[in-house]
Amino acid sequence: MKKFMDRNFLLSGFAAEKLYHDFAEKQPVLDYHCHLSPAEIAADKTFRNITELWLGGDHYKWRIMRSNGADEKYITGDAPDKDKFKVFAAALPRAVGNPMYHWCHLELRRYFGYDGILNEKTWEEVWNLCNEKLKSPSMSAKNLIRMSNVTLVCTTDDPIDDLHYHEEIAEDKDFNIRVLPAWRPDLAMSPEKEGFICYIDKLGEVSGVKIHTFDDWKKALVKRLDYFTEHGCVLTDHGLDYAEFETADEEEMEDIFRRSIRREELSTHDLQVFRTMAMIFLGREYAARGLVMQLHYGAKRENNTRIFEAAGANSGIDCINEKGFSSQTADFLNALQMTGELPKTIIYSLNPTDNVLIGTMIGCFQGDGIRGKIQQGAAWWFNDHKTGIQDQINSLANLGILGNFIGMLTDSRSFISYPRHEYFRRILCNYIGGLVENGEYPDDYEVLGKLVQDISYHNAVKYFGFPLE
Amino acid sequence: MKKFMDRNFLLSGFAAEKLYHDFAEKQPVLDYHCHLSPAEIAADKTFRNITELWLGGDHYKWRIMRSNGADEKYITGDAPDKDKFKVFAAALPRAVGNPMYHWCHLELRRYFGYDGILNEKTWEEVWNLCNEKLKSPSMSAKNLIRMSNVTLVCTTDDPIDDLHYHEEIAEDKDFNIRVLPAWRPDLAMSPEKEGFICYIDKLGEVSGVKIHTFDDWKKALVKRLDYFTEHGCVLTDHGLDYAEFETADEEEMEDIFRRSIRREELSTHDLQVFRTMAMIFLGREYAARGLVMQLHYGAKRENNTRIFEAAGANSGIDCINEKGFSSQTADFLNALQMTGELPKTIIYSLNPTDNVLIGTMIGCFQGDGIRGKIQQGAAWWFNDHKTGIQDQINSLANLGILGNFIGMLTDSRSFISYPRHEYFRRILCNYIGGLVENGEYPDDYEVLGKLVQDISYHNAVKYFGFPLE
Amino acid sequence: MKKFMDRNFLLSGFAAEKLYHDFAEKQPVLDYHCHLSPAEIAADKTFRNITELWLGGDHYKWRIMRSNGADEKYITGDAPDKDKFKVFAAALPRAVGNPMYHWCHLELRRYFGYDGILNEKTWEEVWNLCNEKLKSPSMSAKNLIRMSNVTLVCTTDDPIDDLHYHEEIAEDKDFNIRVLPAWRPDLAMSPEKEGFICYIDKLGEVSGVKIHTFDDWKKALVKRLDYFTEHGCVLTDHGLDYAEFETADEEEMEDIFRRSIRREELSTHDLQVFRTMAMIFLGREYAARGLVMQLHYGAKRENNTRIFEAAGANSGIDCINEKGFSSQTADFLNALQMTGELPKTIIYSLNPTDNVLIGTMIGCFQGDGIRGKIQQGAAWWFNDHKTGIQDQINSLANLGILGNFIGMLTDSRSFISYPRHEYFRRILCNYIGGLVENGEYPDDYEVLGKLVQDISYHNAVKYFGFPLE
Repeated sequence: MKKFMDRNFLLSGFAAEKLYHDFAEKQPVLDYHCHLSPAEIAADKTFRNITELWLGGDHYKWRIMRSNGADEKYITGDAPDKDKFKVFAAALPRAVGNPMYHWCHLELRRYFGYDGILNEKTWEEVWNLCNEKLKSPSMSAKNLIRMSNVTLVCTTDDPIDDLHYHEEIAEDKDFNIRVLPAWRPDLAMSPEKEGFICYIDKLGEVSGVKIHTFDDWKKALVKRLDYFTEHGCVLTDHGLDYAEFETADEEEMEDIFRRSIRREELSTHDLQVFRTMAMIFLGREYAARGLVMQLHYGAKRENNTRIFEAAGANSGIDCINEKGFSSQTADFLNALQMTGELPKTIIYSLNPTDNVLIGTMIGCFQGDGIRGKIQQGAAWWFNDHKTGIQDQINSLANLGILGNFIGMLTDSRSFISYPRHEYFRRILCNYIGGLVENGEYPDDYEVLGKLVQDISYHNAVKYFGFPLE
Repeated sequence: MKKFMDRNFLLSGFAAEKLYHDFAEKQPVLDYHCHLSPAEIAADKTFRNITELWLGGDHYKWRIMRSNGADEKYITGDAPDKDKFKVFAAALPRAVGNPMYHWCHLELRRYFGYDGILNEKTWEEVWNLCNEKLKSPSMSAKNLIRMSNVTLVCTTDDPIDDLHYHEEIAEDKDFNIRVLPAWRPDLAMSPEKEGFICYIDKLGEVSGVKIHTFDDWKKALVKRLDYFTEHGCVLTDHGLDYAEFETADEEEMEDIFRRSIRREELSTHDLQVFRTMAMIFLGREYAARGLVMQLHYGAKRENNTRIFEAAGANSGIDCINEKGFSSQTADFLNALQMTGELPKTIIYSLNPTDNVLIGTMIGCFQGDGIRGKIQQGAAWWFNDHKTGIQDQINSLANLGILGNFIGMLTDSRSFISYPRHEYFRRILCNYIGGLVENGEYPDDYEVLGKLVQDISYHNAVKYFGFPLE
Repeated sequence: MKKFMDRNFLLSGFAAEKLYHDFAEKQPVLDYHCHLSPAEIAADKTFRNITELWLGGDHYKWRIMRSNGADEKYITGDAPDKDKFKVFAAALPRAVGNPMYHWCHLELRRYFGYDGILNEKTWEEVWNLCNEKLKSPSMSAKNLIRMSNVTLVCTTDDPIDDLHYHEEIAEDKDFNIRVLPAWRPDLAMSPEKEGFICYIDKLGEVSGVKIHTFDDWKKALVKRLDYFTEHGCVLTDHGLDYAEFETADEEEMEDIFRRSIRREELSTHDLQVFRTMAMIFLGREYAARGLVMQLHYGAKRENNTRIFEAAGANSGIDCINEKGFSSQTADFLNALQMTGELPKTIIYSLNPTDNVLIGTMIGCFQGDGIRGKIQQGAAWWFNDHKTGIQDQINSLANLGILGNFIGMLTDSRSFISYPRHEYFRRILCNYIGGLVENGEYPDDYEVLGKLVQDISYHNAVKYFGFPLE
């Protein structure tokens, strides 16, 4: 029996241990997709207590608390911070097998030096210990990132953002970790959303382009895209409820756009055309600039209206949309590929049963002298647990070249979620080590050690083209 | 190598063995969802031989026989009982890895004291041994339930049932196991089915409400629901081919109802509206009474018309409907939740690829001070094997709080299917024990032992509110 | 730690090893579904080098190369053979966990006696060694098949083929392995395809039936079907993009057919009717002749237009169509079953999440005195890796009778892909051996040894009715 979360946590056998400790463990972290707040980094935010740090915005933890029957006041409500922490600590031990159990204990060990178990008996000890630690300036946002062996962070930003926090961070000569913007224009292509008109107005303003037509829309976004790339943006990102491919000619598209900005009703077909034509246009612009296109498919959001009205978006009330991703995405990729304008692309689906679908699809569009040009993104959101990470790695290995995988990201709002990279690397090394133990791959640590380092860090650096090595 | 089905069957390692033998094994059984016949319990039925007990109505076994090429006369036909048993015994050894192999041998051991292997060589020995045993009054329906450490049974009943068998059973002072009705109004909301008009007539009769409108329909069902709750009913149940959510205003719904009882053709949309509006109404009534709502999604039934015509429903000719469950269920749950009228709910899908979909969805509606208010039901029907049970447990653990799971049910027509609880508990303990062995959870048997007991029995008792402890 | 691919490759524990080495290993191979070229067999083709043999048409390998960023000239282009091999050898070591890694090394061992590892350091040594070997007449097409312990091969043929290569092969008295045609009439039922009209003309010609009506179409195909069965055809095969069931009366069908051959536009409904009515007709003809019907569902083909235009079909640009298979297939099977005209059927889906769907569906149509009359085909195409094979076996075992499975096929264009049978058998024995090790099945090697031999070979021989034993 192994000790709880010891040195060889999640590692079974010599090969896995060797690959992790000799090769993966020390690799830096490239956090190429996250939701950290540039404002909080720029301000070098500190935290009043562990509740603010852990429960301030982490909807994974909120779900655990709700599942345990906690009243909403302890979750998104106004109960005292100490009570909230107690309620969370009471729920956690029941979440046997949940990644939250491991993430929390990894964070307590790596950032707070606490080696015990968090539960109903120890919660107050942990509360005191963490809060004492958090008083130290070493626990500020920038220092937490520094401490985590991170070399570069890409935040997630809107085309209308002025990026001044990114500029501010870059000007801090004592902080040599690059924090770059990433481009996420979801609202620009969502005419069905309430804020659309208002958004288009702002987009027109910041880009200096009056937007009356789809052609204007394109011009405005191109201006902003150039602004982003001037600020070091290399990644783009799209949250897509559905995979779809409905093309139209220029005239039809202009007509749909005109109706969009006049707030006229759009049919499902109209919306599909809007998104498809927007994606084709943007995909080509990304390809022209060497940007990477991320596609996140398949979330059904804000399912609980009561909580949404009380606590807003990202409150832990989202689920998988089983129809989100489909093989129609192949038609979209092909549309770009036909003219040689398919950018490097990373596909994520919230539904893990899509692993095989994605794995077989990306294989159709590889090539062009780029290793792993089309990637399946790491196990995303609800799949970010041992089973999900294993399954995604296994699927990649079965259907393509695991050695070209660009690996893990945090996708997090928290400054101490970096142990998820440790979690991922342990599972990765355990998978590959398992193959070696089982005679399915030679015990060639020169090859495998390098491969593990590549997946942990170097593949991503090369893929995005960051000047880090 | 482990001996076949020994004391530590399905248990790997110390932690799993300890959790099972010290904590799970002795827990009583709460059989909160089954298809036992109240008439047979009331009559304290006895069995003329093992064929009647095993092959009389068990479509799982019929499928095994058909898959082995057996002629229908040995299955639902009129071959002699002894020949039927022989044909089954010849098929069973080929079903390597099938749960039927384990269930049969568990039942032979636990109820008949037979420790051998059933096959083509031993079938006659087993036939004689079982039939000898079945002559004893200790093998009557009530005694089989008693022997199985069951504290309470919920059958599955129609709103028009008069529940007199339940009354009769309750009056038997020598039988202190409660047998309660559960409410399953499928036909009341199936205007497309042949028997609908006739059913509505009977419903009107037993409720004393003349049913001309949807409003009458509601009144009639409320009367019956009250009648059921007076008889101790705590669970409701719905077999839903599809997840759907199509609302309508009162007027449209009344129009659809009027056309229903006039046997006019209804469109797919009409049927969706009927079911959606019926479910919203009933969901609210359940919430008002503190009843639990079970939703069983995704069976495609009676696929083989020839067998259906010869042998009727539940003849082993059903399969998964891959479109049965979907994220639209979130809209239905939200509709109830918006007004604070979402009852405790248990969701089952016949398609195991829905595990993640259900797991992420139930997390959106938890809370209200109830631990695990919205549950994913135990691995159902075709999924009731080691892989299916493991996967459901693993999915629950990954996505929510395993410790709040209300656990296993038999869903069976047989009086000796209770070893499925043993089967489930062994797999559960093996899962949790495996986490301990692997350093993924502390070896804290105080916490884990209680948790295993909770999932085996106490969580369900508390969830349904039965006065059993 | 096991040595790389040693004698007990993929076998864990005594039972697995015993089942494989004592029972499975020596069984002959029945290659009942492949895409070998009858012309190449008849000509007893030899190979100029390992690139022609390995990279000449193997789109699995092409995908590996593209995923590694190789330029298309090394794949389907005109780079020198030696360079192509080098580029492949450089990609392979990065494909950790991919079945290609195992297949290549199995082939190098079994056909070329090379026990080393193929990689960037050894590629030239392997190149020379293989090419030297390939000069020997012992490495001709017929000799490679002989060497592989194959007793019978079924190729895949079009109804308009004249089968003269099959005749030629049969006439070679020195080659006593039967090579039979299999019937695949995909184009005959694809009015939406460009070549349809031209195809119908040819079909009319070879059958001597002028085709103006659907009735003529039926007559022509029946003539060809009789021609095929005279040539020993026992298997039929259909590549179906979608599962569908849209019937129509004769008049409507004749109208659709008339419009088909006039190149008039057909609606989706028309196409569904065409395919459904064609399948029902053909299914009945198969049943009447005792032929086996294979149904391959769910490929989305030719997704990359650029590669398709340059390199044609089967260039490694296909992916899973997630909507390909569905429970509607039950309606199709039922339509045949209702009149007692359901032939023996093998169902394959490219989407492994359909395993459970298929497993539950085939159970509805078993019987008629045939063991495993309706089969789920072995893990197909993208699923032909350890995980996929395990999952299909496990699903079969969970839901039906594993012992009646007709087992593996190569589905390959290569003369040295027979080690995939070895691969499959090792995984099969490991699965069953694992059950024995874990106490889930008695260690009865008489029963299990026979069962493993049956799945490896004899079940298929009996199922197809080949006079081989």
